[in-house]
Amino acid sequence: MEVIRIASIREVARMAQVAPCTVSRALNNSGYVSEETRKKIIKAVETLDYVPNQWIRNLYHQSTGIIGVVIPDIAHPFFSTLSSCLLNELRKHGYNMMLCSTGTDKNREKEYLGTLERNMFDGVIAGVAMLSDEFYMQIKKPYILLDRKVPNIPLVCSDYRKGGMLAAEKMLADGRKHVLQLCSHILFPTPSYESQEVFAQFLQDHNVNVLTVKLDLWSTMKFEDCFENAQKILQQHPEIDGVFGADLHAVAFLKAAMHLQKKIPQDLSIVSFDGTYVADMGIKSLTTVVQDIQKIAQKTVQVLLRKINGMPIKEDHYYIPLQIRDGESTLK
Amino acid sequence: MEVIRIASIREVARMAQVAPCTVSRALNNSGYVSEETRKKIIKAVETLDYVPNQWIRNLYHQSTGIIGVVIPDIAHPFFSTLSSCLLNELRKHGYNMMLCSTGTDKNREKEYLGTLERNMFDGVIAGVAMLSDEFYMQIKKPYILLDRKVPNIPLVCSDYRKGGMLAAEKMLADGRKHVLQLCSHILFPTPSYESQEVFAQFLQDHNVNVLTVKLDLWSTMKFEDCFENAQKILQQHPEIDGVFGADLHAVAFLKAAMHLQKKIPQDLSIVSFDGTYVADMGIKSLTTVVQDIQKIAQKTVQVLLRKINGMPIKEDHYYIPLQIRDGESTLK
Repeated sequence: MEVIRIASIREVARMAQVAPCTVSRALNNSGYVSEETRKKIIKAVETLDYVPNQWIRNLYHQSTGIIGVVIPDIAHPFFSTLSSCLLNELRKHGYNMMLCSTGTDKNREKEYLGTLERNMFDGVIAGVAMLSDEFYMQIKKPYILLDRKVPNIPLVCSDYRKGGMLAAEKMLADGRKHVLQLCSHILFPTPSYESQEVFAQFLQDHNVNVLTVKLDLWSTMKFEDCFENAQKILQQHPEIDGVFGADLHAVAFLKAAMHLQKKIPQDLSIVSFDGTYVADMGIKSLTTVVQDIQKIAQKTVQVLLRKINGMPIKEDHYYIPLQIRDGESTLK
Repeated sequence: MEVIRIASIREVARMAQVAPCTVSRALNNSGYVSEETRKKIIKAVETLDYVPNQWIRNLYHQSTGIIGVVIPDIAHPFFSTLSSCLLNELRKHGYNMMLCSTGTDKNREKEYLGTLERNMFDGVIAGVAMLSDEFYMQIKKPYILLDRKVPNIPLVCSDYRKGGMLAAEKMLADGRKHVLQLCSHILFPTPSYESQEVFAQFLQDHNVNVLTVKLDLWSTMKFEDCFENAQKILQQHPEIDGVFGADLHAVAFLKAAMHLQKKIPQDLSIVSFDGTYVADMGIKSLTTVVQDIQKIAQKTVQVLLRKINGMPIKEDHYYIPLQIRDGESTLK
């Protein structure tokens, strides 16, 4: 066996002729220690090659107190808000958060998850999941997915189907006939994509035309690009009288429509999805399907901690209720 | 001495009768391993109580490959963009990023920095610094500040003085006489605050009235609150003909002014600071002092790595150039 010798804090204290708590204070800068005592402690630390790190012991017991959080993009308002809420929740329970943003790069996700297997994380919360089901199923450590259904791995997400329905009902109430929906490119049928499916199906069942445009949502966050894109689409499709898309794109359509002299909401109903702080930044407040991001974070951390502590969880899938908030971008 | 015995990968391989690289492949899921071989390896791992973790060795050598990033709020567009750029830069050099958001809580910052001393981080990048100079000066590990001058600790930030001057010149060119500047509450004179000082001084020297309002910028990101605040200020001070503030607040003033039937830019010049993606989300694009966030991240990581590798750095303070981008919210 390879052997690493680790001096204990007691040995350091004995050599420096002080109490162990004094060593701790000196090393953590957490209270008064006289200069003379500090020097003695430092000498003892150096002599014994003491590593003042309980992590070594933690790691030996396969626990680091770190949770990995994998998201496509930190700069995106939904994921920055989610990360903020997750960090607060994790901190309440004494965990640190390591962030990874993958963009649309599968290899980056894979590389990052390798770190999980090399014991760096006690668990992972994944807002993005681009690999095969098998990949996730062989992970032994606690793993929570936020937008992918994989057998035996807990899913915590908004009730996306309900969200799609709420938006569709709004379009129908406003009497819209040519509705545009903005989607992201997806590799797998994801729960979030279900909001789009429900939205389109419900409207088509009611004889509303639905035009679907796929966007690369995780490219660099340039509002200018969203705005140009919105202008182009509205010019190419003057018949469009309703738009459903994520906050950022919905605000871009609001701005583009007003630049094209369309009256909002008379000429065009806009319903946004997510309800982050950017949804209100346009000149009119948007009617928005609001995700309860704080609740998602709370439930996610709750389920993760149960998994880490080897406790059973009640369900495989947790759907967090969402609500529609009326703004100035719809008639009814 | 306390002794932790750590089985080497070679011993696992010997017991499982396979090559060490096969053990590595099996444990990292990084290539094909037959089911039978995998079972043998798992049995050997369990028998030897093998911890497949090079971190234990890394930690023993006082290196974890983790950089701590301390910011006031991840959800804020400037800090989410900065975090995104820092993560990309750190990743290029093989480092992981652990995020801490402190809000305005000094104790939270202190607690987090304790982790640095307990060897969890190889270095820290601090976008917020609320403690005393002495606190930072006794930190032995590499530490980069982004908005605070402390002796012997590198500072990397925008050329804030220049930023304040650019905004002030714009107000003067537009012939403004009653200019509002929005500041954050500060505990220490920070480099970012210098943009405010230069802005006010330059305008006052040119007989322009400057009204300063202090806001709590790091409270929960509610655009609604920013908007209400903007409406209130514009109603209380109808003489205001210029506004200078961070992106989010500048957009709120744009919206509030238009709701109050003010013409932009004829009645009111607005110049925003930061130039993140939200600066364009209003109905008119804002004239903006744009921070080169990517360049800040690059220089910060460059300086940090030199410190980590014990190389000398040329300067104590690095000022990254910034530019003004003309939008539709100023006359000239």
